[in-house]
Amino acid sequence: MRAVIFDGTLRVVSDAPEPVLQSDAEVVIQPRLMGICNTDLELTRGYKDFSGILGHEFVGKVVAGDPAWIGRRVVGEISLACGECDFCRRNVPSQCRNRTTLGIWQHPGVFADYASLPTANLKAVDDRISDRAAVFVEPLAACLQITEAVHISPRDRVVVIGAGKMGLLAAQVLKLTGADVRVIVRRERPARLLSGWRIPAVERAAVADKSIDIVVDCTGNESGFAEALQMVRARGTIVLKSTYAHLPTADLTRVVVDEITVVGSRCGPFEAALRLLAHGLIDVESMIDAEYSLDEVLAAFDSAAQPGALKVLLTPASEWPVT
Amino acid sequence: MRAVIFDGTLRVVSDAPEPVLQSDAEVVIQPRLMGICNTDLELTRGYKDFSGILGHEFVGKVVAGDPAWIGRRVVGEISLACGECDFCRRNVPSQCRNRTTLGIWQHPGVFADYASLPTANLKAVDDRISDRAAVFVEPLAACLQITEAVHISPRDRVVVIGAGKMGLLAAQVLKLTGADVRVIVRRERPARLLSGWRIPAVERAAVADKSIDIVVDCTGNESGFAEALQMVRARGTIVLKSTYAHLPTADLTRVVVDEITVVGSRCGPFEAALRLLAHGLIDVESMIDAEYSLDEVLAAFDSAAQPGALKVLLTPASEWPVT
Repeated sequence: MRAVIFDGTLRVVSDAPEPVLQSDAEVVIQPRLMGICNTDLELTRGYKDFSGILGHEFVGKVVAGDPAWIGRRVVGEISLACGECDFCRRNVPSQCRNRTTLGIWQHPGVFADYASLPTANLKAVDDRISDRAAVFVEPLAACLQITEAVHISPRDRVVVIGAGKMGLLAAQVLKLTGADVRVIVRRERPARLLSGWRIPAVERAAVADKSIDIVVDCTGNESGFAEALQMVRARGTIVLKSTYAHLPTADLTRVVVDEITVVGSRCGPFEAALRLLAHGLIDVESMIDAEYSLDEVLAAFDSAAQPGALKVLLTPASEWPVT
Repeated sequence: MRAVIFDGTLRVVSDAPEPVLQSDAEVVIQPRLMGICNTDLELTRGYKDFSGILGHEFVGKVVAGDPAWIGRRVVGEISLACGECDFCRRNVPSQCRNRTTLGIWQHPGVFADYASLPTANLKAVDDRISDRAAVFVEPLAACLQITEAVHISPRDRVVVIGAGKMGLLAAQVLKLTGADVRVIVRRERPARLLSGWRIPAVERAAVADKSIDIVVDCTGNESGFAEALQMVRARGTIVLKSTYAHLPTADLTRVVVDEITVVGSRCGPFEAALRLLAHGLIDVESMIDAEYSLDEVLAAFDSAAQPGALKVLLTPASEWPVT
């Protein structure tokens, strides 16, 4: 089958092996629409020494495997869990000690004719949710992990830093708590989107030091933590949503003296993301920059890597057999 | 009056100004026994550009001010709060935005004939508690801030790193939760103390990576956070109890990917510390290395700064007028 691989070079190959199901509890999925995530960009820059088929954001159709799923439109959780370790027994498969991860670690990704996943990872997509919305379920779920991990009170002052794809989704999720949510913005595009969503976009200078109850760092760069630490009040909380290419220095003395809580958070609840999309409470389609066919993956990755880029989607190559 | 001052040089002076009460809600205290804290050592190394009378750990007798307090044996919370800022209104005076801090920031300390504190800071000491125990109330309260800030379940595996004064107090507090508490130990003295308290002292190699629910960092050095991060399990918690002389680098990517919570914690509840001491549940007297008179403060600080030193106490100079 055809697939987008990275093995030091990003390219489309036509001879990638098709997925082989290991058990009755797996299915083959034909992706209908795929999203490029910052993690994909990082992988092509050397993160995790990745080699293989890329891609983990998708909406697709089940075409083989468990008959109960065949023909259904699905999204899928990206961690493939062992079912036996202490985290699986505790019902936290996303932290499974033996996990592989779709398109990220030891399991081929979805930028291909076909991909496979266990049925345990699948979530059926409601007809009310378009493909162009459903492809955002994975990153939206990751933002819902903020409210899963941290209690946001409707009285809280919340600031999101990093107004990229993640920050804009996070701001929309946080707005639903009723809290006073502001986003630090430097570019015009996110400022316009936020304005449409009635979420105040502010400059850093408009936020007093040590005044914010909860700061969410979606910057993905090393200065994000230091910036969050300037704004958070004593006994406040910093939520870290993005990974860092290098080891940042961190003023842990201020964390101690001001008794700050720092919470790392990653994958989140797909069901909640699907509910919010079905209710029309999150606007994801305005965040789509462009769609490219898989054939044009190099141009698509270039586009996704531009400063200020939002979501770039991939469609199956036009001559591919999409049903 | 005589006092231990630091103004670039550590020494005893005989002409320090006596405390002047600013209101009826303050008292003058004559210290009976004082403790040297690592923060005192840091201040004499340049921390906070300190200049003034040192000392914040004490038990003493009220000798002037509010008549309701005169003659009583007391300990005292170290943060002097404004009573008006958002933290004071929220009943968190230890984080008052306008606070001064006894012997640390803008308020003269207790290594002197006399010191002053607001009555709001005083806690009367039960007769069941000796001076040699009561002088530990402030650091013991700081360790109780761990269980104030983080829910420790009796099912948890807890590791304390840094088996100094703070680590040994923290281990004793944590043991009371019923959790499986271990302390990483490199020296013989803390190993012996822990053995007497039936708390397992272990080598780092005996703790599997990513296996511990809660790691408490009492090391006070920059490697502590990295060490804690190696041991804590995904979705586990790191409690930071000590400040760091330099900005450590911190693997915040692991915090995100493994969804770890980092909690800084500082001053804690004096009442709870007094209750535990009155109940005889914490052994502090075994942690006393030596007592020096204030006249011998240079020798006392030298002793407290020795690697592996535990608590060094100061007594009023023998010819000082102690009642």
